Amino acid sequence: MNAIDTSILDTLTRIVGPSGILGGADMTPYLVDWRNLYSDGRALAVVRPGSTQELSDCVKACVAAGVPMVPQGGNTSMVAGATPDASGRAVVISTQRMNRIREIDTLDMTMVAEAGVILKTAQDVAREAGALFPLSLGAEGSATIGGVLSTNAGGNTTVRYGNARELMLGLEAVMPDGTIWNGLRRLRKDNTGYALRHLLVGAEGTLGFITAAALRLFPLPREEAVALCALRDEDAALSLFRRFRDRDESAVRAFEYMSAGSMHLVLDNVPGATLPLAERAGHYVLVDLASSRPQAGLRELLEEVLAEAMEEGEVLDAALAESGAQRAAIWRLREEHPEGQKLAGASVKSDVSVPVSKVPEMIRRSSEALRKLIPGSRPVPFGHIGDGNIHMNLAQPPDMDAAAFLARSHDIMDTVNEVVRDYGGSFSAEHGIGRIKTDMMEDWRGGAELAAMQAIKAALDPKGLFNPGKVLP
Amino acid sequence: MNAIDTSILDTLTRIVGPSGILGGADMTPYLVDWRNLYSDGRALAVVRPGSTQELSDCVKACVAAGVPMVPQGGNTSMVAGATPDASGRAVVISTQRMNRIREIDTLDMTMVAEAGVILKTAQDVAREAGALFPLSLGAEGSATIGGVLSTNAGGNTTVRYGNARELMLGLEAVMPDGTIWNGLRRLRKDNTGYALRHLLVGAEGTLGFITAAALRLFPLPREEAVALCALRDEDAALSLFRRFRDRDESAVRAFEYMSAGSMHLVLDNVPGATLPLAERAGHYVLVDLASSRPQAGLRELLEEVLAEAMEEGEVLDAALAESGAQRAAIWRLREEHPEGQKLAGASVKSDVSVPVSKVPEMIRRSSEALRKLIPGSRPVPFGHIGDGNIHMNLAQPPDMDAAAFLARSHDIMDTVNEVVRDYGGSFSAEHGIGRIKTDMMEDWRGGAELAAMQAIKAALDPKGLFNPGKVLP
Repeated sequence: MNAIDTSILDTLTRIVGPSGILGGADMTPYLVDWRNLYSDGRALAVVRPGSTQELSDCVKACVAAGVPMVPQGGNTSMVAGATPDASGRAVVISTQRMNRIREIDTLDMTMVAEAGVILKTAQDVAREAGALFPLSLGAEGSATIGGVLSTNAGGNTTVRYGNARELMLGLEAVMPDGTIWNGLRRLRKDNTGYALRHLLVGAEGTLGFITAAALRLFPLPREEAVALCALRDEDAALSLFRRFRDRDESAVRAFEYMSAGSMHLVLDNVPGATLPLAERAGHYVLVDLASSRPQAGLRELLEEVLAEAMEEGEVLDAALAESGAQRAAIWRLREEHPEGQKLAGASVKSDVSVPVSKVPEMIRRSSEALRKLIPGSRPVPFGHIGDGNIHMNLAQPPDMDAAAFLARSHDIMDTVNEVVRDYGGSFSAEHGIGRIKTDMMEDWRGGAELAAMQAIKAALDPKGLFNPGKVLP
Repeated sequence: MNAIDTSILDTLTRIVGPSGILGGADMTPYLVDWRNLYSDGRALAVVRPGSTQELSDCVKACVAAGVPMVPQGGNTSMVAGATPDASGRAVVISTQRMNRIREIDTLDMTMVAEAGVILKTAQDVAREAGALFPLSLGAEGSATIGGVLSTNAGGNTTVRYGNARELMLGLEAVMPDGTIWNGLRRLRKDNTGYALRHLLVGAEGTLGFITAAALRLFPLPREEAVALCALRDEDAALSLFRRFRDRDESAVRAFEYMSAGSMHLVLDNVPGATLPLAERAGHYVLVDLASSRPQAGLRELLEEVLAEAMEEGEVLDAALAESGAQRAAIWRLREEHPEGQKLAGASVKSDVSVPVSKVPEMIRRSSEALRKLIPGSRPVPFGHIGDGNIHMNLAQPPDMDAAAFLARSHDIMDTVNEVVRDYGGSFSAEHGIGRIKTDMMEDWRGGAELAAMQAIKAALDPKGLFNPGKVLP
């Protein structure tokens, strides 16, 4: 560690206090990404400011010293977006101690939360106040508000409430020169210049550091209806989605597809997982309807639409939840898909999207191409079919060496991506770019789009100190 | 006209053909803004490319010649955002001839429309295909898709479907160097770098030229229920909104407030306008419920909630539309507010927003301050109370000289704005900045936010040729 490094550590310690800064082995949990994709992360220190002003002071000190900064919330990035590289030159700036709900207003249906508030906490605080903060995803017990906004997280309820972006009204952020931008406006309409807040959302901390957000709340659902359905094929899943959407688009809270491949890994490997249907099938969907209206008649709607679809031969069987416990059990089956795949050995994840109408073809063509690429491998697609977003994952052949299988990761992702490209899809639907997909940006977003992104990055962060090596190639 | 000017006109004529370029008196309708705020507009020519490629070629030629460009759609800007300044150096680039619906897909619920498609046409095409394009506003018969996106237009249905921004999935645009960006992705989830599309939306053509857009469609409503209500006071309007929102937030398609001042100018001045209530009142709201669900029970919901609110003394009387004709008649009363004000003499418009809960106080305090500023003047507020967006307009005192009244325009706007500022509101909710509000940007958005906007403008349009003099001071 050279002279500059020591002096910046002294400065940062003065700003955040000795308990606000971590070094040595205490840093370990902050250096390794959630999926353990990289084990080379090093840092000068982990700094944990207690306020926006402290964070601003830290940024100013780092900019003056030329020290790169890696913003980190709950460290649950699926693409290694929140951990430092191997250089050891950067500091990690954690929002851990900036975790206050500053304000909640159920008349305006807004909440102002600091970046370090855990998503689950935000949901709970809203619920206690009698409102819904609808963003919901697997990592919600660790992911933070700053993180879900910086990555424009999606999850299960996008089909009804939108991504994190759509749930955000205003932001407070520390810009790359250390100045504080107070854009915490709780307004539904505000057309006053460029949408800086939308630029920071999804920028993964490369254009500024989100420190707090004004979020939208919704009325709590008063009626819910959930079913697990066995389906004839992928087309039936799309057709069923369409039936519900056309009937009452605002009632569809989630609509999740699960292939037999993926579902059966859950049933065979996850302790306690049982299928509430008479027989296994080739395809499943979870239908989740909700409404804030009392006596919304969702159960009737569910039965009616399923009966129609059964008559058409699309739905083979369905289990309708009769209680909160049964709803939770059906949802658990869906949530255990990553775990089921993990227990079955190595798997390669993907996170692609296509126009909704192309999902069935995309699943079939990708599965076929993957089986051809690695004989004996098992395509295990599942995900948010209502958004056109499928995790087109691949489980290893049971008899193959895991390391040899994982060595093919890039081939596997490329195989899926080439199918997705044919349908005008995206190679990253909800996980973002982080560190692992920067090398795809030139190919997929090159030309006018990438040029504009790079010009914006150079304009706002001319020294390139904000989350270097992420998003842009 | 100097040598350079002539040469650029030759070049542009070669690109768009002789019928694509207008000069002399033919330019007049393109030079005067919709509200006739400025009469000094001049231009080298009005260029009307017939395709994105032609538009790109025009931009490249203008950039090479250093000629400023003013993008124009339907020329319905409320803030003189689409007309050139007095210098006569610029060309107006009109999207008039780029008016194709390229694609409509009711399975994906998307539509790809060129920039020059008129909003009303987009609505009609969607409806004929069995879907809803929900953006709806007064100027829809002239405003274009490019214009409503460039200004992030709002209108009557924002409370349910969002602003233009929320209805846009992808864009095609010509960037300020003339390159074409094809970002016409029809994806609900796509987290691949900075949200360039959200940066262009609302940038009023200063960062690039939107040439086409992928738009979201929704199921057509199968049931509608509309009522006009007479209310006790402004608080009752807010309370009634809250009752409907809490009961079924997804059913509220529009919720419009109208003050007595404004409503009575309509009733007294607009031929054929009649109040479907027994007596005039101090405050009115239009409630518009809609659902794609058959037998949604909206009429019952309307009656139930209004009965509750009557019992509380909030609603004094209500007329429930019994037919499509009656619904249209109630909506016409709302739509005639600008006309009613126009027929009553001079008026000064504003377009402010505050958090929804602050609307009643904001209306009362602004009205009082305006009456004090200009004795005898008549505050005539109306607008989208469900979005916190009120047009806090002021009609002249009947006995005052119109020109003398209009000379006070800035004082009037400032008076409203100072109240709005107290509530963390915005000085431009849905109309944007254009030419008339650039001088407010430093005061309202100065510091980190304006600095970031200026850095982005300089990075993407270093020569400042795209819609100069608009948005930024």
